[in-house]
Amino acid sequence: MTARIWGAEGLGTGILVATVVGSGIMGQTLTENVAVALLVNAVATAAMLAVLITLLGPVSGAQFNPCVTLVLWATGTLPGARVAGLIAAQLAGAVAGTLLAHAMFDRALITLSDHARTGPAQWLSEMVATAMLIFVILSGLRHRPAALPALVALSILAMYLWTASTSFANPAVTLARALTDTFSGIRPGDVPAFVLAQLVGAGLGLGLFRLVQGADSQS
Amino acid sequence: MTARIWGAEGLGTGILVATVVGSGIMGQTLTENVAVALLVNAVATAAMLAVLITLLGPVSGAQFNPCVTLVLWATGTLPGARVAGLIAAQLAGAVAGTLLAHAMFDRALITLSDHARTGPAQWLSEMVATAMLIFVILSGLRHRPAALPALVALSILAMYLWTASTSFANPAVTLARALTDTFSGIRPGDVPAFVLAQLVGAGLGLGLFRLVQGADSQS
Amino acid sequence: MTARIWGAEGLGTGILVATVVGSGIMGQTLTENVAVALLVNAVATAAMLAVLITLLGPVSGAQFNPCVTLVLWATGTLPGARVAGLIAAQLAGAVAGTLLAHAMFDRALITLSDHARTGPAQWLSEMVATAMLIFVILSGLRHRPAALPALVALSILAMYLWTASTSFANPAVTLARALTDTFSGIRPGDVPAFVLAQLVGAGLGLGLFRLVQGADSQS
Amino acid sequence: MTARIWGAEGLGTGILVATVVGSGIMGQTLTENVAVALLVNAVATAAMLAVLITLLGPVSGAQFNPCVTLVLWATGTLPGARVAGLIAAQLAGAVAGTLLAHAMFDRALITLSDHARTGPAQWLSEMVATAMLIFVILSGLRHRPAALPALVALSILAMYLWTASTSFANPAVTLARALTDTFSGIRPGDVPAFVLAQLVGAGLGLGLFRLVQGADSQS
Repeated sequence: MTARIWGAEGLGTGILVATVVGSGIMGQTLTENVAVALLVNAVATAAMLAVLITLLGPVSGAQFNPCVTLVLWATGTLPGARVAGLIAAQLAGAVAGTLLAHAMFDRALITLSDHARTGPAQWLSEMVATAMLIFVILSGLRHRPAALPALVALSILAMYLWTASTSFANPAVTLARALTDTFSGIRPGDVPAFVLAQLVGAGLGLGLFRLVQGADSQS
Repeated sequence: MTARIWGAEGLGTGILVATVVGSGIMGQTLTENVAVALLVNAVATAAMLAVLITLLGPVSGAQFNPCVTLVLWATGTLPGARVAGLIAAQLAGAVAGTLLAHAMFDRALITLSDHARTGPAQWLSEMVATAMLIFVILSGLRHRPAALPALVALSILAMYLWTASTSFANPAVTLARALTDTFSGIRPGDVPAFVLAQLVGAGLGLGLFRLVQGADSQS
Repeated sequence: MTARIWGAEGLGTGILVATVVGSGIMGQTLTENVAVALLVNAVATAAMLAVLITLLGPVSGAQFNPCVTLVLWATGTLPGARVAGLIAAQLAGAVAGTLLAHAMFDRALITLSDHARTGPAQWLSEMVATAMLIFVILSGLRHRPAALPALVALSILAMYLWTASTSFANPAVTLARALTDTFSGIRPGDVPAFVLAQLVGAGLGLGLFRLVQGADSQS
Repeated sequence: MTARIWGAEGLGTGILVATVVGSGIMGQTLTENVAVALLVNAVATAAMLAVLITLLGPVSGAQFNPCVTLVLWATGTLPGARVAGLIAAQLAGAVAGTLLAHAMFDRALITLSDHARTGPAQWLSEMVATAMLIFVILSGLRHRPAALPALVALSILAMYLWTASTSFANPAVTLARALTDTFSGIRPGDVPAFVLAQLVGAGLGLGLFRLVQGADSQS
């Protein structure tokens, strides 16, 4: 049973990363218009995410994201004993996703990115993106749990396009994106600050949720 | 309780404006093809709007728009005592949204737009866009309230692309867009006529609703 | 009551045409990439159509299309006494939609198109598009009436892109598109053959529906 | 009754192929930006697929794909006596779909593709795409059968963009795409390896489903 949960988190995070990295390579290869490449990247990611959350949610909760796992633990939704296993499955799945995308596109299995993503504006962007993601998930769980796949997918679609960092908003995905020197990559040295900003953002998102939606019923 | 309502209206309008301004900067930066930039702008705005209305509707009604607030007051759906507070929250949130987008994209926090948007054709366009928006909201509340987030998002997506002004259709958002000298901006001097056209359009939309849907049951 | 039905058909068809013509002008003005312009045109039309069918369906049935009206009459769904009034409202609304789009984009109110759309391949395309549209509407009414707005919108989105004529599939809209010398126009002299192909296609669609879905229960 | 089932499978597969081939020709003709052409191709296919599955599912199950038919037979969902007839209908429909697209776009009815699609990376890509498609269908049937049209359409939309082969994932469609020397074509000599990869992928998808979703209840 627990193995199935880990498998589902690993599979989901892996396919999510394969989608991000693969559609990034596709966009970059087919056009020099970066906005079109970003649209390809964003549409593929959002569409796949909606499917994965719908179909793996009943098995593992379909968190695919250490920030989400930590917040659900902090709000008492998730028992502490599961946290480490879920995050390990997410990390392993994420890295496997990069390998899969590289193999499909006939690239070296791992290449370190040299795509600089750093500076206070990028960090602010990750904080905002992660805060919004957490706010959307917690509010969705309260008001419209059946619509959660659509709500998360639409948020990610939009935040790819309106945040300056294109919304990584996920430490496992961020790590895996350091291992690809393609469109969606991030320099390994830039990862720690991104992850830190995401963790801070997750906390802010939880606070925002309690402030706006009220702390009463569910959280 | 009232503070939560104001907070939700401020947050929703703020994120809406951050989406409009942020995705405008993203599109403008990544491509010289203005139609692609407009698609980026429209898709991001519609997707985020659907999410915001779904999740903040249960708290504040998710109006995010003084025209909508005024029409709901005029139809007796909203008590008069709330109107001023809601509009103030929308205006404050909208301006904060521009600041947030600028901070994320590492720009000066406020820059006055020099994007001319004026003349009878543009004003007609704003009138049509606002009338349609009000018609959609009132008709949706009557026939399919649960689908309101999708109906408003799809209308805005379409009207970005088929009205000549790209459908501001919102005085709070219009004001906030005067404070950004980027893709989505509007010259401060062009704001009053836009707002006037929107208010007229809101009235026309209410009339159209009563004419076509009948005045009987809900309005 | 009947006046409200006519009004709804006129309004819906008018806004539909304003969307087609307006987003065509928008796409054509903003980019020289015709595929991007067609995407703008298709996305705007499909999104608006879903909204209009949802909100005007409860009033008038939201046919917006003489072919649909005639087929519903042929299948006994619609009383014969209503047919002429509905089609007249559709035609009047359609022409008004072109005028509205032109006014918003600051063009002469009527300009005759010189966009040639003729020849057997184009006529076959209109036949296929209209047959599919009728098949989708009749099958949707039988199996998933609540999903009809989405089904029609998704069909039109797709058929804009996969039929050679971009799927006019509507005599009222075809007529109105002869009155605009812009992206979505059609030469007035090419209209009669298009309308004839659409009427033949509507008949084929009805036959296809009976063949595949069975003639038993509803038609 | 059985004739209706074959007819529905043939019609659905035919319109699916006409969409793939037709929108490919449309994209290729209108732009030199291959990413935009691929978006046109992917959006048209996904939108049409959602409609076809919704409306033909109640008649024939709307498989449109020999891999799906074989898997449903392997899991005991489909009686063995139906398999050959369904696959024959899918193949005949698929070829007719190419002819229809060519006729609409005024091309020779059949032209052999010279688009090379071969090599281990492409075959891996087809394996991944088909495995995911089968996983999505089986998981969707278990957890959210009413959402199956949307789940399949969103998966195909995404996999067009994130797999290196653009996800043929369907032997009948692959065969039909060998008969068109346009955007979506595949060299006839490359078909057998693609089909083999798809069949292997289908088996992997079934295994993945049992591993992650459990073999208990439905399969």
